[in-house]
Amino acid sequence: MTKGALALLVHGGTENWSPQRWKDRFDGVCEGRPVLLLPDASFDPAEVHYAAVWKPHPGELAAFPNLRVIFNLGAGVDALMADRSLPDVPLVRVAVGDLTGRMTEYVVLHVLMHHRQEPYLRQSQREKRWAPKPQWAANAVTVGIMGLGTLGADAADALRRLGFRVAGWSNSPKQIEGVTCFHGKLQLDVFLARVNILVCLLPLTLNTQQILNRRLFEKLDRNSPLGAPILINAGRGGLQNEADILQCLDDGTLGGASLDVYATEPLPVDSRFWTHPKVVLTPHNAADTDPDEISKYVAEQIARFEAGGALDNVVDRKRGY
Amino acid sequence: MTKGALALLVHGGTENWSPQRWKDRFDGVCEGRPVLLLPDASFDPAEVHYAAVWKPHPGELAAFPNLRVIFNLGAGVDALMADRSLPDVPLVRVAVGDLTGRMTEYVVLHVLMHHRQEPYLRQSQREKRWAPKPQWAANAVTVGIMGLGTLGADAADALRRLGFRVAGWSNSPKQIEGVTCFHGKLQLDVFLARVNILVCLLPLTLNTQQILNRRLFEKLDRNSPLGAPILINAGRGGLQNEADILQCLDDGTLGGASLDVYATEPLPVDSRFWTHPKVVLTPHNAADTDPDEISKYVAEQIARFEAGGALDNVVDRKRGY
Repeated sequence: MTKGALALLVHGGTENWSPQRWKDRFDGVCEGRPVLLLPDASFDPAEVHYAAVWKPHPGELAAFPNLRVIFNLGAGVDALMADRSLPDVPLVRVAVGDLTGRMTEYVVLHVLMHHRQEPYLRQSQREKRWAPKPQWAANAVTVGIMGLGTLGADAADALRRLGFRVAGWSNSPKQIEGVTCFHGKLQLDVFLARVNILVCLLPLTLNTQQILNRRLFEKLDRNSPLGAPILINAGRGGLQNEADILQCLDDGTLGGASLDVYATEPLPVDSRFWTHPKVVLTPHNAADTDPDEISKYVAEQIARFEAGGALDNVVDRKRGY
Repeated sequence: MTKGALALLVHGGTENWSPQRWKDRFDGVCEGRPVLLLPDASFDPAEVHYAAVWKPHPGELAAFPNLRVIFNLGAGVDALMADRSLPDVPLVRVAVGDLTGRMTEYVVLHVLMHHRQEPYLRQSQREKRWAPKPQWAANAVTVGIMGLGTLGADAADALRRLGFRVAGWSNSPKQIEGVTCFHGKLQLDVFLARVNILVCLLPLTLNTQQILNRRLFEKLDRNSPLGAPILINAGRGGLQNEADILQCLDDGTLGGASLDVYATEPLPVDSRFWTHPKVVLTPHNAADTDPDEISKYVAEQIARFEAGGALDNVVDRKRGY
């Protein structure tokens, strides 16, 4: 008996999202199962039981009448959820340990860069100026994390161990050791009022669109040694109002920003983010997915599913993540 | 009865080492004890029982006939030890928790900057290029820490928790959970052969002068995704051969360097370190001492000493640290 085929729909563009790179990895772990790289005219769509996707085109998944599970090759499923023709089968969001560790690296790196005055120190180096400024301790700064799922909880723990005060905010109540947790709309302002460095790891849903805007930035605390608060967004571009961020950086409402995600990606070349002296910009690579880890994860989930077991990390379609 | 005076000899130059800043802090914690800011002609040197010093001039401490303890306001005592007229009283090296935390921040920040390809990403931003490169996992990299005292052990632990493989080397044998430890001259090469990012936190002694040289760099491992190994020196400038570092960066023996310390400080304006594209330079501020924490620490040690208790962190003059 031939195993149901796995179709790969990978539309990325950057080197890390080379479709062939993914096919090689999946071929290595899907013993006896055809792995199809779409588009491919030589096969029958009815043979496809599983799809592993990255930024599939709207309607593309509706072509498979016998589809059983969709695996999204990253943590964010907002683009998929916007596809009204998405087949009504379980949608699995990849959440391998590797991805969590990578996001924590990004968060720790960028919190430390702002805390330790890296933009100032790099400028001093360019100007050949030996001019250290007094440096405050980590416990003089509160990092606030919006989104306390697997990624947020891990980042919070790493920051706490480095000596930062850490607060967290999420949709539903959470408990994390050493982290002051807030939840829901009613507690958002109390959370913001104590935060000096805001880290956003929220999923993009109808409730969180452009949540990072001037009204929110104005509620952050300005009384730490950092002065104006810092924004770090490694969630989704749709979470941020980009005009507000630029204006708030210009007028001092924000003291700096690390951005990994943007309303339009790749970031258009005329965006002021590229050249703004207070912006530390990365090209949506905060938590690059490792094809090795992820292909193994998907193959294991398929094997478990076919043996009658439950799937991990199935997206709640009502909630949107 | 008047308490024996505490003399402050603080010769720094940068804002953080303003002598008056230190006097204010010590006045606040040394109840009933005169705190003298040297030079000061209005007092009798015989009244001085304690000295708190930062870069005192050679011979300066010999002026106090009744000196009982010298407190060095930083972790490194190599400059003091070179003073042949240094009075033969206990020399205490400040090692407050705050200092350790700050050094760990520096080490984690700079390891992550190289691991996460920050120099490349900043250059891409300047050139408005959206061009993410594949990113490897932390466990594909071994960080090697030279010097496993309080600072080295804490940094090793933080790096291990972030997912890096961590090895350590020190003069005497150490055991640190999750860290492969080597010691002594005989094990140095075995240690180096597995290291991709070398972090130097050694004290400067006769045995460690210019230990960071071409011969050592050539023994580091080149088989990680980083390619050429990285040097991070936050110990002392005297530990490094600066001509070797520049040549090894130029010929690819080293892939990058983060330097906080230099043979001459402030770093001369004509040093090639300022402009070298592979160098991330900081002005000896990796672990800035916090006057609040340190003045409290010294006052507590004096109180304990006068009550007949033992002093912490007394330097072993034979060993040199």
